[in-house]
Amino acid sequence: MNFKECFPIWDKLTPEQQNKISKAIVYRHIEKGTMLYNGLDCTGLLLIKTGQLRAYILSDEGREITLYRLLDGDICLFSASCIMNSLQFTINIVSEKNSEVWVIPPDVYKNLMENSAAVANYTNELMASRFSEVMWLIEQIMWKSLDKRLAAFLVEETSLENTTSLKITHEIIANHLGSAREVVTRMLRYFQNEGIVKLTRGTVEILDLQKLKQLSI
Amino acid sequence: MNFKECFPIWDKLTPEQQNKISKAIVYRHIEKGTMLYNGLDCTGLLLIKTGQLRAYILSDEGREITLYRLLDGDICLFSASCIMNSLQFTINIVSEKNSEVWVIPPDVYKNLMENSAAVANYTNELMASRFSEVMWLIEQIMWKSLDKRLAAFLVEETSLENTTSLKITHEIIANHLGSAREVVTRMLRYFQNEGIVKLTRGTVEILDLQKLKQLSI
Repeated sequence: MNFKECFPIWDKLTPEQQNKISKAIVYRHIEKGTMLYNGLDCTGLLLIKTGQLRAYILSDEGREITLYRLLDGDICLFSASCIMNSLQFTINIVSEKNSEVWVIPPDVYKNLMENSAAVANYTNELMASRFSEVMWLIEQIMWKSLDKRLAAFLVEETSLENTTSLKITHEIIANHLGSAREVVTRMLRYFQNEGIVKLTRGTVEILDLQKLKQLSI
Repeated sequence: MNFKECFPIWDKLTPEQQNKISKAIVYRHIEKGTMLYNGLDCTGLLLIKTGQLRAYILSDEGREITLYRLLDGDICLFSASCIMNSLQFTINIVSEKNSEVWVIPPDVYKNLMENSAAVANYTNELMASRFSEVMWLIEQIMWKSLDKRLAAFLVEETSLENTTSLKITHEIIANHLGSAREVVTRMLRYFQNEGIVKLTRGTVEILDLQKLKQLSI
């Protein structure tokens, strides 16, 4: 897969625009755990060839909550927040797996967007997708109990990691869910008593995925 | 004020586009309490000449939380959610005051957006503004205690209604904050004991706005 096969509106660009973007993009290999964006530098758009990125927010006290994940083929728009004046919030982007990405410099993309309705409308759709994910999160936080959210998170992790033996600490789970470690530990122990998971140091083993899925609804 | 003075990118439209939109817009007087959008019909964009709209979400059990308010000169984009495929969530829009709005039919706007980079980029900025408000809300819900959120809400109401004697029930306040009526009542009584408010049937009177502002930070 090369850039033009991954960039959905390649065919809607003029040859000149295609040429401009081809020259500007930078291919990067990113190690797991790299901070890609923290609201300060305008990194540019990230088109993920393979890998996994996590977008999250951080409180003044250092608490976290995951907003959404970006996977193969996804485009990270908010790492180029400087291209839009009205984006008045700070998110953080970190790689959760070794990833291969193309970086589109913000000034190049901004110029494309200003001159091409196709690119501007595509950007709209990108933002609308992220907006939908964040709205889903608000509904989860507001109306769903933590046991259901924890169950849904473990089901998602099992799918993303392709294993039922998750190498993850209670603290990291708490950071995903915007909760406290103690609360997550208590809930995981309850799941263990119910025979749904088995807890060992640094590992959550899923024993009954079916029950976990039922619980998450 | 007429439409072209209120529509920020009027000058960036071609005469033909200006003509098209002029013919399509509908001027509407809306009574306080009118449901303008509930996710079913695609109403169109609403440009508010005067008035106040409220955007909120609703749980299956009928609980509510206010996402943001729209005031004079604001444009309501999500009442035209059909113009973007990737908007996968339902919000509700209701008028909180008698309002005067121009309705831009969704098909007309969509056509403009597809053919004009200026309109598409303006739509981007609109969405980014709403996104920023929703991100602010998430931060409030996640990291801020209810007493601070209640204080901030009462300060905002005092400013919007231009009075310190607010005609508002505890239930409506709870719906704004995504909380339960009992919780809001308890907190308001605490404020009353502290000499910040005075509660009478259907009214919250602000006695110490300064203290309320300090509390809201």
